[in-house]
Amino acid sequence: MAVLGTAAVEVLIPVASLIGIAFAALQWYVVSKVPVRLHHDDNDDDDNADLGKAMGRRSSSEVEEEEDEDDDQEEDGGAATTITGGRAAESRCAEIQRAISVGATSFLLTEYRYLAIFTTAFAAVIFLFLGSVHRFSLHPEPCAHHNNPTTSLLTTCRPATAGAAFTAAAFLLGALTSVLSGYLGMRVATFANARAALQARRGVGPAFAVAFRSGAAMGFTLASSALLVLYAAVNLFGLYYGEDWAGLYEAVTGYGLGGSSVALFGRVGGGIYTKAADVGADLVGKVERNIPEDDPRNPAVIADNVGDNVGDIAGMGSDLFGSYAESTCAALFVASISSFGEDRDFTAMMYPLLVSAAGILVCAVTTVVATDVVKVKDEAAVGPALKRQILISTVLMTGAIAGVTFLALPRQFTLFDFGNVKVVKNWHLFICVSSGLWAGLVIGYVTEYFTSNAYGPVRAVARSCRTGAATNVIFGLAVGYKSVIIPILAIAAAIYAAFRLAAMYGIALAALGMLSTIATGLTIDAYGPISDNAGGIAEMAGLPPRARRRTDALDAAGNTTAAIGKGFAIGSAALVSLALFGAFVGRAGVRAVDVLGPRVFVGLLVGAMLPYWFSAMTMRSVGSAALRMVEEVRRQFDEIPGLAEGRVAPDYATCVRISTDASLRKMMAPGALVMLSPLVVGTLFGVETLAGLLAGALVSGVQVAISASNSGGAWDNAKKYIEAGASEEARLLGPKGSEAHKAAVIGDTIGDPLKDTSGPSLNILIKLMAVESLVFAPFFAAHGGIIFDHL
Amino acid sequence: MAVLGTAAVEVLIPVASLIGIAFAALQWYVVSKVPVRLHHDDNDDDDNADLGKAMGRRSSSEVEEEEDEDDDQEEDGGAATTITGGRAAESRCAEIQRAISVGATSFLLTEYRYLAIFTTAFAAVIFLFLGSVHRFSLHPEPCAHHNNPTTSLLTTCRPATAGAAFTAAAFLLGALTSVLSGYLGMRVATFANARAALQARRGVGPAFAVAFRSGAAMGFTLASSALLVLYAAVNLFGLYYGEDWAGLYEAVTGYGLGGSSVALFGRVGGGIYTKAADVGADLVGKVERNIPEDDPRNPAVIADNVGDNVGDIAGMGSDLFGSYAESTCAALFVASISSFGEDRDFTAMMYPLLVSAAGILVCAVTTVVATDVVKVKDEAAVGPALKRQILISTVLMTGAIAGVTFLALPRQFTLFDFGNVKVVKNWHLFICVSSGLWAGLVIGYVTEYFTSNAYGPVRAVARSCRTGAATNVIFGLAVGYKSVIIPILAIAAAIYAAFRLAAMYGIALAALGMLSTIATGLTIDAYGPISDNAGGIAEMAGLPPRARRRTDALDAAGNTTAAIGKGFAIGSAALVSLALFGAFVGRAGVRAVDVLGPRVFVGLLVGAMLPYWFSAMTMRSVGSAALRMVEEVRRQFDEIPGLAEGRVAPDYATCVRISTDASLRKMMAPGALVMLSPLVVGTLFGVETLAGLLAGALVSGVQVAISASNSGGAWDNAKKYIEAGASEEARLLGPKGSEAHKAAVIGDTIGDPLKDTSGPSLNILIKLMAVESLVFAPFFAAHGGIIFDHL
Repeated sequence: MAVLGTAAVEVLIPVASLIGIAFAALQWYVVSKVPVRLHHDDNDDDDNADLGKAMGRRSSSEVEEEEDEDDDQEEDGGAATTITGGRAAESRCAEIQRAISVGATSFLLTEYRYLAIFTTAFAAVIFLFLGSVHRFSLHPEPCAHHNNPTTSLLTTCRPATAGAAFTAAAFLLGALTSVLSGYLGMRVATFANARAALQARRGVGPAFAVAFRSGAAMGFTLASSALLVLYAAVNLFGLYYGEDWAGLYEAVTGYGLGGSSVALFGRVGGGIYTKAADVGADLVGKVERNIPEDDPRNPAVIADNVGDNVGDIAGMGSDLFGSYAESTCAALFVASISSFGEDRDFTAMMYPLLVSAAGILVCAVTTVVATDVVKVKDEAAVGPALKRQILISTVLMTGAIAGVTFLALPRQFTLFDFGNVKVVKNWHLFICVSSGLWAGLVIGYVTEYFTSNAYGPVRAVARSCRTGAATNVIFGLAVGYKSVIIPILAIAAAIYAAFRLAAMYGIALAALGMLSTIATGLTIDAYGPISDNAGGIAEMAGLPPRARRRTDALDAAGNTTAAIGKGFAIGSAALVSLALFGAFVGRAGVRAVDVLGPRVFVGLLVGAMLPYWFSAMTMRSVGSAALRMVEEVRRQFDEIPGLAEGRVAPDYATCVRISTDASLRKMMAPGALVMLSPLVVGTLFGVETLAGLLAGALVSGVQVAISASNSGGAWDNAKKYIEAGASEEARLLGPKGSEAHKAAVIGDTIGDPLKDTSGPSLNILIKLMAVESLVFAPFFAAHGGIIFDHL
Repeated sequence: MAVLGTAAVEVLIPVASLIGIAFAALQWYVVSKVPVRLHHDDNDDDDNADLGKAMGRRSSSEVEEEEDEDDDQEEDGGAATTITGGRAAESRCAEIQRAISVGATSFLLTEYRYLAIFTTAFAAVIFLFLGSVHRFSLHPEPCAHHNNPTTSLLTTCRPATAGAAFTAAAFLLGALTSVLSGYLGMRVATFANARAALQARRGVGPAFAVAFRSGAAMGFTLASSALLVLYAAVNLFGLYYGEDWAGLYEAVTGYGLGGSSVALFGRVGGGIYTKAADVGADLVGKVERNIPEDDPRNPAVIADNVGDNVGDIAGMGSDLFGSYAESTCAALFVASISSFGEDRDFTAMMYPLLVSAAGILVCAVTTVVATDVVKVKDEAAVGPALKRQILISTVLMTGAIAGVTFLALPRQFTLFDFGNVKVVKNWHLFICVSSGLWAGLVIGYVTEYFTSNAYGPVRAVARSCRTGAATNVIFGLAVGYKSVIIPILAIAAAIYAAFRLAAMYGIALAALGMLSTIATGLTIDAYGPISDNAGGIAEMAGLPPRARRRTDALDAAGNTTAAIGKGFAIGSAALVSLALFGAFVGRAGVRAVDVLGPRVFVGLLVGAMLPYWFSAMTMRSVGSAALRMVEEVRRQFDEIPGLAEGRVAPDYATCVRISTDASLRKMMAPGALVMLSPLVVGTLFGVETLAGLLAGALVSGVQVAISASNSGGAWDNAKKYIEAGASEEARLLGPKGSEAHKAAVIGDTIGDPLKDTSGPSLNILIKLMAVESLVFAPFFAAHGGIIFDHL
């Protein structure tokens, strides 16, 4: 048996979670020390008028005075003296922050109202479908134990109807946790962005610290609460299930399904919201009116900034929470029917949670390196500091995994690989977890190479802008396609290693390994949109150009970390869905998924098509919402006298409403496609076709998602490269407003829905379909395949 | 036994081929009656100078006079009187046609020199790899018969070394036939395009007749000679193989490999050529200089027109020939180990060839409908006439298949489905062939819906140009993604039906069914680039605007038929490669391709990535070649005085050279990726991983190919829709040169490499990898999997 006893495990997991939450609170506290206060008293409820005044005051003589300052003066010297009109700027920032926060909160609350209806209804579907398998019987049943070839210790297990009820409960719990994750992330981000903007007046270092610490506040809250809730659920459900671990962990998979369902709508809805606003704002503002990004005269600018918070922050938070919940559920489910479950070895069963607990501690140390050990001093240090975070956390985590593995696992144990018995050694699992972790690092670094403007690919894309938007788009698409190669090979290598050593349990552990540093991943990921918003607020509040330049530098690094975050999300989704897929196949009693059977092949082909169908819907939604936004923005410029000159405030609220309406209306169809496909295919065509569908969606969706994210990232940073004029070549292409820059803006706009709506939603598509199939597997196995059985 | 005797089959197949060739010759003869002669005597070898003069004369008073004619006068009345300066125009057209023909011929001959080296080397590789399996033994061997569970009639079969030699010979024969197909197609097209341009002065009807008949000349020559050569090869090889039919048809699969290898380089090389020229010409001409498409002042214009002939015509010819050869080979190979082969039922064995023979006759009847029964009278009739061709040929062919099936097949027979015995009835095969045929019709009609400007999708794309290039691209991508759904469902339905009824033989027959109307498919497909070129020649030779407007109408319909042709090519490639994949798995002795094995899954994932890798290479090649072209065109406009005003001829030859160099150099890497992937994976990782790789490339590649082709087609026709101003809405968006039109041109340019380079090459990727795996299967089964066997 392992070194760690049950009692130690019972203490360690909640303690690590609580440390994580305390660490998050500490970061939040440090950020909150930056004052953002309203210094005038008309803080009543007429938001738009106030906001207009706040941003309208920008054209006062005071701002002119600020802008006349010498841009090239020593950056970090005499911070106090260079901040003129501090109180007024603070007040303007506070007003804008409030507007963004109010918009984001109101959108999320509306969205969650829809989700409440959906989750309640779907929980009922779960209960009805699963309960119907044994006709809602309340009698204990003989244990199935999913092809487990050894005789079980138990002779009877809990009734299927109880399983149905607990699965539905776990689903609701997962959905609720996911909602909280998204909401908290949004609150943190909207709390931090004006503070980062104000600190940008002092220098890059202070601004970076605010954005980074806020990211950490979000990352640690989310990682810790995900672990804590899951741990509590296992213990609570265990009170009823007792020794029936297979039943317990089967019910717990509902937690993953709940998490990912909410994540899907969050990602799609938020993605449509943010990109409709962003594309709409850019098309009129930058292309037609030639006014800067985030200019307060642009009516869509508040909607754009709200979008960053509801799409990139809340969406990403829910997404990674879903991946984390699913991979843990998949690992627990497979482990429950391995010899861990047979032997009632609680410590070994909790191995996945122990890995995550160790991850929280490792990430806390990693964060301290960036905030206190190697501080960011200038713009050039931002990118490397973020990149270093991934490397440090990966190296430290490898050691931590080794420790947990040798402390928590028996030297050798048996896995029941759905029909085959497999003897596994503890160091095999160390390799499984590490292979996922290091595959994540490879994906992160490759993504950085293809999306950062420090390297060749983005520069080639920027260079292609010389001959116009068409070549820019052709090169950007090619970069996205090319960026798929190495991540796929890395994932394939991790899969092969994990699969060979520990079958589906190994795959689930590899996914967990990639997500073990999720707190750091979320930190640097949330950092991006916070910096982006800070830049927006700096522009709108009329902070000095220097501050805006600094936030631009933070934002450029943020584009790359956002792409890296998407890479992690996609890579882990691929591993998670494979593990779930394997668990589904075992649970549904499918012997082999033979591609050379008509049912499987047809499923594979149609599954590979689903990402395209889904993307067609989301792209079109963004496109048509953006068209409406463009028309509204144009209308305001045409009809509101004095708007173009900055004398009158635009009507921000209408633009917010357009984005809200569009996203809530348009998230239904793609959401339904994902939620219904497994149910329809499983019920009508049976488990073999469904297995093919899952495999097809997985292998095709991963490619579409990676290439879409990276093409978008490359275009965005190619544009930033030209704008920043950081090299001889970039200066030749620029400045803002040049033909090459206009071509770059078109590429950036095309990339927006690819990288922030379609691409990142696809990883939810593949894992959600897999976890849903797993949850409904007992039903499909009993009643599935109505049509093909009659052909 | 069947009604048709062996002797009847021996007569019917060659006779049908010869009828097809005679029919093609008749079409050619009719086209050649349109006179295109040089009427001045300086037809020496100094092409560029002559050409310059030919096109320079355009700005003479004679042309002005033509252009002053009333454009709106009765179109078909008094043809003779409206053609002023007939001899001069004829002469100019002849000169331009000669330049295009010389450029295309010279490019193809250069390309074929490279291909000669490659095919010779690869034939040696085939011989060495296959011969090595039994150490180049020349002794007869016991018959393997590929898992055939019944006892064979034969006890010994031909030695493997003979098989290696015959496979290599068949490979060379396939390569040679493919080269001839491409070359002949190009000759026909360059013979016809000036004639179509000149006839456009008389009216839409005569111009349509020329373009359509030339397409038919190409289509029937190709379909007939492909059948004839394959039939001859089977009979010749049979002299040696005698009763060893399994050995015979295994060797014949080399024919398919040869055909597709050449098609790959033809498609990629031709695709890069044509799009580098097209993109380069458009970027400077239409976007920067604001001169019309195909304006003779544009130095890249000749290269652009040459490209249509080497890319769209020769490439498509080789491509469809490859599909046809492969599907026939796959069907013959599977049939040879079914009871047909066991019983030595020659008539039934020749069923696939009989279907193709019947197809030639059906297509001849279909062609006569368009040329003689329902003639095209005005511009609006062009699209429906082409669409009608597909419907008529499909309906007639269904009857023909029924006839062939009941005449040639025994009522019932046994298939050996790689381990399983399956009893099949003759009407099952009728359904298999018909399911492919009708799936093709569905693909054709859906493609038309998504790429023709008569319907909603393209009009929505055009409308999105109001807000600029970015929304145009977003909508176009969404249309491409969406257009995948129904074709995939149609292919899936055909696969399910054919697979259930007759396993892999059924799939091969479904592919053949889709290709049975190949002569008509090629006719309407070749019609497109011929019309495109006719338009180019009309513009360059300064024919009256009316003639140009008519060729534009022909060309818009041609864009749609080109997209339909690509749809057919992709759909049939999907079916063909599945059949080949099945044959490979059987031949390599793989029991099941279980996705839940690490080797297969890793192959699946990496296979799904290959289309992206391939597309990244080809897109980038087009992009960088286009950049060089742009620089050259800009340089000529800047450095050649009088060029912009049309007083001096540009230097066309340099642009032709840039396209030639770029395409020959850049076709190597993507070609190597496709040719080497199966060899490397099979040798290093073994047959299971290779099987996964093929399945992954198939299900992912089909989606990428369809969406790329249809996005490109939609953008092209959205642009044409705006240019033609055919509706109220289109007039609001236009005219040429408006902001919306500029946005549409950007979309069209982005679509160019997607629809004419990457997209259509991908179907060759998937089928070529499959046929190569089948040919090398004995080697992989014996020696494959070096690395994984040691892990």
